[in-house]
Amino acid sequence: MKYIPKNIERVIEEFSKMPGIGPKSAERLTFYLLKKTESDIRNIGDTISKLKEGIKYCEICKNLTTETKCAICEDSSRNQSTICIVEDVLDLIALEKANEYKGAYHVLHGLISPVEGIGPDELTITDLVDRVQNNDIKEVIIGLNPSMEGEATASYIMRFIKPLNVRVTRIARGIPVGGDLEYADSQTLKRALEGRLEY
Amino acid sequence: MKYIPKNIERVIEEFSKMPGIGPKSAERLTFYLLKKTESDIRNIGDTISKLKEGIKYCEICKNLTTETKCAICEDSSRNQSTICIVEDVLDLIALEKANEYKGAYHVLHGLISPVEGIGPDELTITDLVDRVQNNDIKEVIIGLNPSMEGEATASYIMRFIKPLNVRVTRIARGIPVGGDLEYADSQTLKRALEGRLEY
Repeated sequence: MKYIPKNIERVIEEFSKMPGIGPKSAERLTFYLLKKTESDIRNIGDTISKLKEGIKYCEICKNLTTETKCAICEDSSRNQSTICIVEDVLDLIALEKANEYKGAYHVLHGLISPVEGIGPDELTITDLVDRVQNNDIKEVIIGLNPSMEGEATASYIMRFIKPLNVRVTRIARGIPVGGDLEYADSQTLKRALEGRLEY
Repeated sequence: MKYIPKNIERVIEEFSKMPGIGPKSAERLTFYLLKKTESDIRNIGDTISKLKEGIKYCEICKNLTTETKCAICEDSSRNQSTICIVEDVLDLIALEKANEYKGAYHVLHGLISPVEGIGPDELTITDLVDRVQNNDIKEVIIGLNPSMEGEATASYIMRFIKPLNVRVTRIARGIPVGGDLEYADSQTLKRALEGRLEY
């Protein structure tokens, strides 16, 4: 693209590399930014530059934080004896937005996936087991995706958690709210029936 | 979102403001960046910060450039006596990618739109008329969208260009390649018939 300045081309390139952004969207985003003032653009650039500044894993739950412990582990109003295991921080955010769960988390930062070469040692499973073993944990909720990797990871974790005599639950699988029974797959329907509750 | 660090929240916010990016995509983009090294992230931030650095309008065609004239106006291998009028730089990029047109451009930076309060004076129409008047221009191609604003802008421009005795053409309106005649609206079909060419 020699017909537009290099600065602009570079930003289009960066956007194109991002997931779900095609070349046309990348151009559109870049020209959206170009309509802003230079100082606004610099602020956005700075905000992105600082994204990872001082970010580390919470020493307890492996959520992201700038302190030693994350805001959730520090929050004494939350039930710290219940741990919900999630794949990544995006899942934690989704659960927090539902505004229902008031316990703690444990972020695995991935799922066991032989295809992608991710073994249990790449995840934070050892920390989880230590945490359950050495603290007064009453319940562990498995909040992993109902995918093959999610199931495999859940059963791997169970091997270590089960002997510790803690209540273990998993989030319900069933018809999503607003979903259509007619279009649900048979595995989902099976789980929905198994998990039925009193009316 | 007090459960994640402020730095991260700010980046999610910036992405959310961009066109076509919802809150979920904004989170996904941010966490895509978080997987990169701090120095990679800083590079991306810097690239964005520098987006508008030294960018100005080409004094001839109003394309974006860091020099006095843009790369297209400087290119002596292109036919500088043909001008294609486009709404914005995104349209110029789209035409350049088609790799068919080898003339010059004139970027209006908008269309006349009474609804949005954009009058002819906000656009680069005066510069265009001066350019056609004072240079050896053989053809002006109207490369504007076939929308109401595009048509209005085209006919406004024609008032000034027609008396200058230049050949004026407009890009063809018709069935897009890969499109379906059955689903084309009647205005498009009408234009497609009007614009038919010898087989």
